[in-house]
Amino acid sequence: MLRLGPIAAAARRLPAGPCPGPLCLAGSRGSFARSWPPAGDRRPLFRQVRAAAAGGERVRVLKTPKGTRDHPPAQTALRDRLLSAVVSCFKRHGAAAIDTPVLELRETLMGKYGEDTKLIYELQDQGGELLALRYDLTVPFARYLAMNKVTNMKRYHVAKVYRRDNPATTRGRYREFYQCDFDIAGQFDPMIPDAECLKIVHEILSDLQLGDFIIKVNDRRILNGVFAVCGVPESKFIPACSTVDKLDKVPWEEVRSEMVGEKGLSPEAADRIGEYVQLHGGLDLIERLLQDPKLSQNKLAKEGLGDMKLLFEYLTLFGITEKISFDLSLARGLDYYTGVIFEAVLLHQENEHVEEAVSVGSVAGGGRYDGLVGMFDPKGRKVPCVGVSIGIERIFSILEQRLEVGDAGSALGKALGSKILFIRSLQLHSAEMLYKKDPKLLKQLQYCEDTGIPLAAIVGEQELADRVVKLRDVATREQVDIPREKLIDEIRRRLEP
Amino acid sequence: MLRLGPIAAAARRLPAGPCPGPLCLAGSRGSFARSWPPAGDRRPLFRQVRAAAAGGERVRVLKTPKGTRDHPPAQTALRDRLLSAVVSCFKRHGAAAIDTPVLELRETLMGKYGEDTKLIYELQDQGGELLALRYDLTVPFARYLAMNKVTNMKRYHVAKVYRRDNPATTRGRYREFYQCDFDIAGQFDPMIPDAECLKIVHEILSDLQLGDFIIKVNDRRILNGVFAVCGVPESKFIPACSTVDKLDKVPWEEVRSEMVGEKGLSPEAADRIGEYVQLHGGLDLIERLLQDPKLSQNKLAKEGLGDMKLLFEYLTLFGITEKISFDLSLARGLDYYTGVIFEAVLLHQENEHVEEAVSVGSVAGGGRYDGLVGMFDPKGRKVPCVGVSIGIERIFSILEQRLEVGDAGSALGKALGSKILFIRSLQLHSAEMLYKKDPKLLKQLQYCEDTGIPLAAIVGEQELADRVVKLRDVATREQVDIPREKLIDEIRRRLEP
Repeated sequence: MLRLGPIAAAARRLPAGPCPGPLCLAGSRGSFARSWPPAGDRRPLFRQVRAAAAGGERVRVLKTPKGTRDHPPAQTALRDRLLSAVVSCFKRHGAAAIDTPVLELRETLMGKYGEDTKLIYELQDQGGELLALRYDLTVPFARYLAMNKVTNMKRYHVAKVYRRDNPATTRGRYREFYQCDFDIAGQFDPMIPDAECLKIVHEILSDLQLGDFIIKVNDRRILNGVFAVCGVPESKFIPACSTVDKLDKVPWEEVRSEMVGEKGLSPEAADRIGEYVQLHGGLDLIERLLQDPKLSQNKLAKEGLGDMKLLFEYLTLFGITEKISFDLSLARGLDYYTGVIFEAVLLHQENEHVEEAVSVGSVAGGGRYDGLVGMFDPKGRKVPCVGVSIGIERIFSILEQRLEVGDAGSALGKALGSKILFIRSLQLHSAEMLYKKDPKLLKQLQYCEDTGIPLAAIVGEQELADRVVKLRDVATREQVDIPREKLIDEIRRRLEP
Repeated sequence: MLRLGPIAAAARRLPAGPCPGPLCLAGSRGSFARSWPPAGDRRPLFRQVRAAAAGGERVRVLKTPKGTRDHPPAQTALRDRLLSAVVSCFKRHGAAAIDTPVLELRETLMGKYGEDTKLIYELQDQGGELLALRYDLTVPFARYLAMNKVTNMKRYHVAKVYRRDNPATTRGRYREFYQCDFDIAGQFDPMIPDAECLKIVHEILSDLQLGDFIIKVNDRRILNGVFAVCGVPESKFIPACSTVDKLDKVPWEEVRSEMVGEKGLSPEAADRIGEYVQLHGGLDLIERLLQDPKLSQNKLAKEGLGDMKLLFEYLTLFGITEKISFDLSLARGLDYYTGVIFEAVLLHQENEHVEEAVSVGSVAGGGRYDGLVGMFDPKGRKVPCVGVSIGIERIFSILEQRLEVGDAGSALGKALGSKILFIRSLQLHSAEMLYKKDPKLLKQLQYCEDTGIPLAAIVGEQELADRVVKLRDVATREQVDIPREKLIDEIRRRLEP
């Protein structure tokens, strides 16, 4: 790679403010702190290592950043299996993958997440553009659509996002975590793309066998309609919204007192809201609200209820209505939703481990955001969008907890199972080999037993002459000669779960 | 997710210096610039969108950060195929995948990359730890080994890394790019892991059919030995090294003048170095240098040459020596190499596109770094490591260029080919469907022809009754009834490349 000269480098690093970077974080190097390059970098590595061994340059803190974690092989294998299950569903539904940078211009992210904007990681101004780490995959998708003037697209995107949130790692909440997003952009007949998103959530949660689940559905227009007919001023829709959102965790009384106390709604308004947001049901409830003397007079609410009815008709076609609940307490945090919103939560509590699982909360969520692309388009042209995000990290932490009681052991077994030791066969593609020039046979078979390698393929002089490989079952110690050309198939057969 | 209150947020965001973040980057909002939350976030989205449409809140710059890019579906599909080819080779060699965060403590990265430390992206101090974006996957791997006290591991890691380098996007050099790393950690018989790394490079470059290539091999100990016997003071080993590294781009005369001019080596030393670093060959050259009156007296050089000889013996076993060149001009930039280093470059120039390809430079590189883990271990315990990194972005840009002349069209075809339109079959898993309630059949077949969807599956009343699906070849317009249970296999069969 082409390297910048030290002069250019120095120029680019002119402090933009006090303590702009490594010059300061290297402050512990005392008088070296303001020199460039940092003292530690001037000397050949072997010197630094010698110093390290002597306790000089040693790294003081040995950890990953707060709210992040390493994935060792077993976890990575399990997670990859999870992701591929989700992705294959996205592909079944005809979505194409795109990739966008982890870095976005700060300007792209600002003003999209309401109060959560404060959770965005920002990069230092190192003499270039003002950058931030993406907070989700939805805003970058909207930016992508507007930038490339795409008005019609079905895409999925599996990637990490970053939030300076309070981590709760046992419940699968991290500051760096994977999102699996499926979105449909474009002008279509009402509610058909929305229905497909719910179908996808249903398929994935069924395929992963996480236990029983329910998908709550609501519509921002219905909520705003409710607030309006209950006498909430428009300026208080969003605070009211975020308070209602807590109904799945705390009883109505607490929500009510927050509305009246912190959010300054009138007790009467709060009580009227309470009558609505505690309702949940199906088509019957939709019909009832369509007849509601107050709501039926509100344009927004009427639109939302009409679409909700249409949605349930499609969900009936899909045959998944028994897992769908029209729930007026569902509000969702983010600003950018404009229509249907939904969230999937796990229900059953067969044992304490799944109880743990329930505590991780929602495992999928999404909704319609018809205004977001317009915020990026130079002419403000809108592209209606609806999408869903699968909470893969939370699902992963559920499976991890089950793993601890061996419940999903087979899954892991498969991931780790395909191991084999080729002995004295450097020329072959060896899945694993002992790094010894001429290791003793018994010692290597011992290594197999110690490390749980199920198969050993032995290639000695005789086997080379006969063009066979002696395949040994490490557990039973039975061994049989396999013709070279049949070896791979035989190994596959034996390692098949 | 649990949210911080605005007060806590405000506290966390106290300016650490002039212009620390969004308060300033939102400066264009004038008097709002110092208010929190930013003005744009106060209002419901539909208001913002209305403003956007009216030209108020619209995002001004619509782009990805400098040196980064979006990958549209075709590119993403091709890149995923590339990555899986590389990964399957890593797996064949028994490596297990790990994942580490994109974010690392700044302290973890500082003092590992010599002069290139200035290319590290640093995050703002937002009231937590001092963080940076990883520069490569090697230092995080060393941090992982030390942190988890792992002394023996064969791992691969495919992920993005970040460098504030001068982008040259046409040559596949970006500020955000994928690395595909394979590393072997642990104490083993000399040069066997090193040999496997070279075998892997050979396998991957052969599998990908990028044209003829050569893998240059050298050893830091040999280079340092050369410098020593040529009378270069140890303090100038690294500058000398980085100058020698340019020999693949510029003639010796220029390198010599830089050594004498910028780096302050004596003309005599430079000339003596020139006699060595212009040498390249195989076992014969190694033998010759082992007899060299000066070099053979230098302990480091002798060790390096002895190991190089052993390495070539294993490479002969692998049968890949004809692609390996022991090249004394190879130096590699990074500080942390302690032994064998290597770099693979493409050779042939069959046509202007592959000529382009050559200009992208090396497509793989790596080496031995026995000191790095010791820098992280609290007791400075060393874990010898050797690894290779596949320059997948450069390979990708080569394939992209070929794609423009359809050379790799098939690859792309496969990636995009598996499309099918299910008509009137909302209940089925549909790969793609028109978002119309009751679309006309001909219109949908037209859609197939327009969008290049090769297969259409028609499910009408009759087909439903007969439990079959009418499968239609969009191009030939031939259609045949397939029993439901056989449908998937039939589709697979037809879409197989």
